[in-house]
Amino acid sequence: MITERNARATGDDVYELARALFPVPRSLTGEGVRETLRLVDELVPLELTEVPTGTAIFDWTAPREWNVAGAWIADESGRRIADYADSNLHLLGYSQPIRTRLRGAKLLEHLHSLPEHPDSIPYRTAYWAPTWGFCVTDRTRAEIVPDAEYDVVIDATLEDGSLTYGEAVLEGESEEEVLLSTYICHPSLANDNVSGIALLAVLGRDLASRPLRRTHRLLFSPGTLGPLAWLSRNRGQLERIHAGVVVACVGDDGPLRYKRSRAGDTIVDQAAAHVLRQRSREAMVDDFFPWGGDERQFCSPGFDLPVGALTRTPHGLFPQYHSSADNLDLITPQSLGDSLATVHELIEVLERNRTYTSRAPYGEPQLGRRGLYREVSAGAPRSEEAFQRALLWVLNQADGSQSLLDTAERAALPFSVVAAAADALFEAGLLE
Amino acid sequence: MITERNARATGDDVYELARALFPVPRSLTGEGVRETLRLVDELVPLELTEVPTGTAIFDWTAPREWNVAGAWIADESGRRIADYADSNLHLLGYSQPIRTRLRGAKLLEHLHSLPEHPDSIPYRTAYWAPTWGFCVTDRTRAEIVPDAEYDVVIDATLEDGSLTYGEAVLEGESEEEVLLSTYICHPSLANDNVSGIALLAVLGRDLASRPLRRTHRLLFSPGTLGPLAWLSRNRGQLERIHAGVVVACVGDDGPLRYKRSRAGDTIVDQAAAHVLRQRSREAMVDDFFPWGGDERQFCSPGFDLPVGALTRTPHGLFPQYHSSADNLDLITPQSLGDSLATVHELIEVLERNRTYTSRAPYGEPQLGRRGLYREVSAGAPRSEEAFQRALLWVLNQADGSQSLLDTAERAALPFSVVAAAADALFEAGLLE
Amino acid sequence: MITERNARATGDDVYELARALFPVPRSLTGEGVRETLRLVDELVPLELTEVPTGTAIFDWTAPREWNVAGAWIADESGRRIADYADSNLHLLGYSQPIRTRLRGAKLLEHLHSLPEHPDSIPYRTAYWAPTWGFCVTDRTRAEIVPDAEYDVVIDATLEDGSLTYGEAVLEGESEEEVLLSTYICHPSLANDNVSGIALLAVLGRDLASRPLRRTHRLLFSPGTLGPLAWLSRNRGQLERIHAGVVVACVGDDGPLRYKRSRAGDTIVDQAAAHVLRQRSREAMVDDFFPWGGDERQFCSPGFDLPVGALTRTPHGLFPQYHSSADNLDLITPQSLGDSLATVHELIEVLERNRTYTSRAPYGEPQLGRRGLYREVSAGAPRSEEAFQRALLWVLNQADGSQSLLDTAERAALPFSVVAAAADALFEAGLLE
Repeated sequence: MITERNARATGDDVYELARALFPVPRSLTGEGVRETLRLVDELVPLELTEVPTGTAIFDWTAPREWNVAGAWIADESGRRIADYADSNLHLLGYSQPIRTRLRGAKLLEHLHSLPEHPDSIPYRTAYWAPTWGFCVTDRTRAEIVPDAEYDVVIDATLEDGSLTYGEAVLEGESEEEVLLSTYICHPSLANDNVSGIALLAVLGRDLASRPLRRTHRLLFSPGTLGPLAWLSRNRGQLERIHAGVVVACVGDDGPLRYKRSRAGDTIVDQAAAHVLRQRSREAMVDDFFPWGGDERQFCSPGFDLPVGALTRTPHGLFPQYHSSADNLDLITPQSLGDSLATVHELIEVLERNRTYTSRAPYGEPQLGRRGLYREVSAGAPRSEEAFQRALLWVLNQADGSQSLLDTAERAALPFSVVAAAADALFEAGLLE
Repeated sequence: MITERNARATGDDVYELARALFPVPRSLTGEGVRETLRLVDELVPLELTEVPTGTAIFDWTAPREWNVAGAWIADESGRRIADYADSNLHLLGYSQPIRTRLRGAKLLEHLHSLPEHPDSIPYRTAYWAPTWGFCVTDRTRAEIVPDAEYDVVIDATLEDGSLTYGEAVLEGESEEEVLLSTYICHPSLANDNVSGIALLAVLGRDLASRPLRRTHRLLFSPGTLGPLAWLSRNRGQLERIHAGVVVACVGDDGPLRYKRSRAGDTIVDQAAAHVLRQRSREAMVDDFFPWGGDERQFCSPGFDLPVGALTRTPHGLFPQYHSSADNLDLITPQSLGDSLATVHELIEVLERNRTYTSRAPYGEPQLGRRGLYREVSAGAPRSEEAFQRALLWVLNQADGSQSLLDTAERAALPFSVVAAAADALFEAGLLE
Repeated sequence: MITERNARATGDDVYELARALFPVPRSLTGEGVRETLRLVDELVPLELTEVPTGTAIFDWTAPREWNVAGAWIADESGRRIADYADSNLHLLGYSQPIRTRLRGAKLLEHLHSLPEHPDSIPYRTAYWAPTWGFCVTDRTRAEIVPDAEYDVVIDATLEDGSLTYGEAVLEGESEEEVLLSTYICHPSLANDNVSGIALLAVLGRDLASRPLRRTHRLLFSPGTLGPLAWLSRNRGQLERIHAGVVVACVGDDGPLRYKRSRAGDTIVDQAAAHVLRQRSREAMVDDFFPWGGDERQFCSPGFDLPVGALTRTPHGLFPQYHSSADNLDLITPQSLGDSLATVHELIEVLERNRTYTSRAPYGEPQLGRRGLYREVSAGAPRSEEAFQRALLWVLNQADGSQSLLDTAERAALPFSVVAAAADALFEAGLLE
């Protein structure tokens, strides 16, 4: 059980890792991705996979690898008005290398800004278009003089190489797997998604030190293509996936939010909805929709896996989204700790959930002689006697068709209380 | 797509036909029925069926044919206090011929009036009873002097003949049929049901000029016995009916109202509910109930066809119902046009609805290289980007089990947007 | 049909029997149980079963028989501060015999009281613990002087004997059974459960004088062990149970309350919910929960019988529960009569419920020529014409899959109206 104090302590751990991950210049491919995986590996050992440029990945192809040495725009006085060294958001992702001088009017065609947030640098990519560009604040853009000349330098390579992902497999008693996935392609954006990377890394460290019933797989991969590459290499083993969650945007102070899988009623949907309802009144459970994060790939019709998504404020719904305002001030140790504790609790529910059959199904068994009922009877259990109620519910529902989670939901009791009651009844020989 | 201007224009067409149909003296059988079908035939060619008197129609028998040359009541001074020539509502439907003089006290037993609407003539019939009667305003009834004498003349024939119905078959690519039915037995009542006859006639004219995937059958028949006669002669072909709607009471200014089929969840129920929700917040969708219009026959347990009913204010729920107050002032070109556009839209949804299977079901396909996604990515589609959302929804749901209408409902998007997205994806080779 | 006047009259009968039953010193076993069954037998002849001490009853064993000649506590002056002769609640149920003198401090360990209700004597039992105790008002308890001496006498026997239950079998045309069960182990508590015993006794008297389609079995047995003993002796015949209700706590002035069976949607659940909704807006229908009365045994997973529970304010939810305040003032002839009428109505629905098939399923049959429809038509049936609506609903739903109760629910009509319509249609040869 994670106490409030523990949640804060591990929230600090997550925040500390997030701070280290923040400046790394990530993209769909390249050294920034590998550096990110190296930082994660310090907490939980990873196995890396390199997918060579040109490899077919379902409807896609692994792209060329992109690495940036530097990039800037300077005005006629030599002043750098945008410099990759200041913020890796300045460079349009997958910009082609260039070294040129052009007029302001022409330069403007290659600039991206956010008129509604004039002090923020947007985050933009053009993975599949042969172009280049810079992202700047709208104030900077406004200062461009159409007739003036500007120097543009993008010292980058776009060459055959590979797309990289890492995974940690924490073996359990069973081959059944719980998949926890996050994306590592976003550069200096704190909530989206340094928060998810850091959370899963700390989670991996924690899980490594506890016994597990099922195998837990942590997947750190660049968005869309990473999960697809993993899926293409593991098609024969997808049956093993008992439940999965994509974890991202988990550091801001918005309420917890779970997005159901495409099927909508799988075990992870049931467990996550239960956990969120128990943890907070503000928590939300959304039906599936086919945009957002990597759950889209796991939930495409050809796979239709039991994989949902856990966030706090999700993609596109916080004003700092995809801009330089999504920085380390947006995320807090407390929110990160609460998110981590939520994932732990979800895993705990999945680990402890079982379907029992009563060994005394004909009438109520005599609980008193097993020490499970008070000696002097006073009638129905009072509302505060949740454990007594849970004992009766578990016995009544133990017909081999209802899981403990089903029982908790029908009884409107916390899973932990129902599971503890089941443990006591199992100890007493009343369940099998 | 029907624009507001078109709706008004065709609403005018419907109203004009309604005005021509209004005075025709219709009943369950007779020359008024044939004259009505002749007026419809001017817009859409009809095939007529004559069902001879005495023909067994399930639990019923085709009745004798009723025709009226004239009918009136005169007081001792010779003043006609009720005359069929003024309003065909004055005569109780299927009154037997009579020519007599009787006292006011006796006459009163044969008069029908509406105390709660003292200026309206009620509409009454007695198809199966050997009787006669007149319908008068309650004011007229109050003036009858019990001891005075009155002359009564009903110059009518009730003889072997036939029951007449007409149908127009607009052939489509497939033998599957969409059935549109209305009843033609009510005399001078505008909303109930000159409105329905006129609407289906104009609809027929419109449908004749467009390509159709399914065959569309328009049935104009006297209520209850007409549909039953048609059903009895088409029992072997009822499997062809993909969807059907009984259209009546569609000219008043009440909100649109759809009544589900007996089964309640057939394709026409799903499509009509979707169309009505999209068109208006005031529109209502009612569960089936076994009274109202001819949907009762199509939805009897032996047939249980996928046939619902479209009205504005339905039978019995407007105060002018079944009285002379249901006149041409109660219906408007605008309401008739809106109702017609609704039927067109319903037909459009049924025609365009399909169930696709994705040809790239493993993950999301690469939309960018097919020109279906912007080159520079900025994240999740914004709420105004309904078409982008529809592309993703259609791809995600295209597992061979979900129709476009199912997808539109899950996505909470208009069917037209979802269908347009499906067309684009089909063009791009992504669906089959 | 039970009129309001009848309800009151039989409510008086129930109250009179309750008054006679109230003082009898009942427990899990013993002569008080037998005296209770003798009083019931005066209204409806019972067959008694004696289950010898030591008999295995599933997970339980039939206990020793407990009989009390007298019991009291006296202070040093000889004043009796608690006397079984005043109230049989004073003695902890199944107290072992004792005759001793002890100090107040020690005596207090054997006293039970209700601090929140200082003037009430609680009801407590210790069937399975080798102990003794007295139940007193909290005021009495407060007067105990720790250093004073007290005489305690429990003149009781706890010896091999038997557990007793009684049943009345009212034979119907069919072997299918409706089971009505109540518990007879509570001593002087009026609502819980002298009310239930008295109600079932009067019901039995009433049912004996009417023809029955199904066999009705009334079971009067000590709680928990009684039903389990009955179940253990009737395991081969449980398939016969079509529906069942545990009746208890039916005399207070709270609203009617029905608790669903474990399965939740059996015929008794459907019928009881319908009857309660028809009788009162205040009536409540609760989902099953595994505590309360003997429905727990019938609804244990090994049996899972279609048995619900009917109460007014149920176990634990009235402040007088399990205390001397649950006396004859808490129950009224009017509430008892209303509860009895409810059970009669429930039985009536179960008896009359049938699933018909229409003999004229193709379209509506011609009701007019069978005298079931007015000769002069005026349109849709008005809201007050419930019988007309019921005729149409029954015909429309008579496809061999929908019971009259299903039809009543879909039609939102009282079962009695729907059943009367079905009778008329059956008479007319339209149903089979």
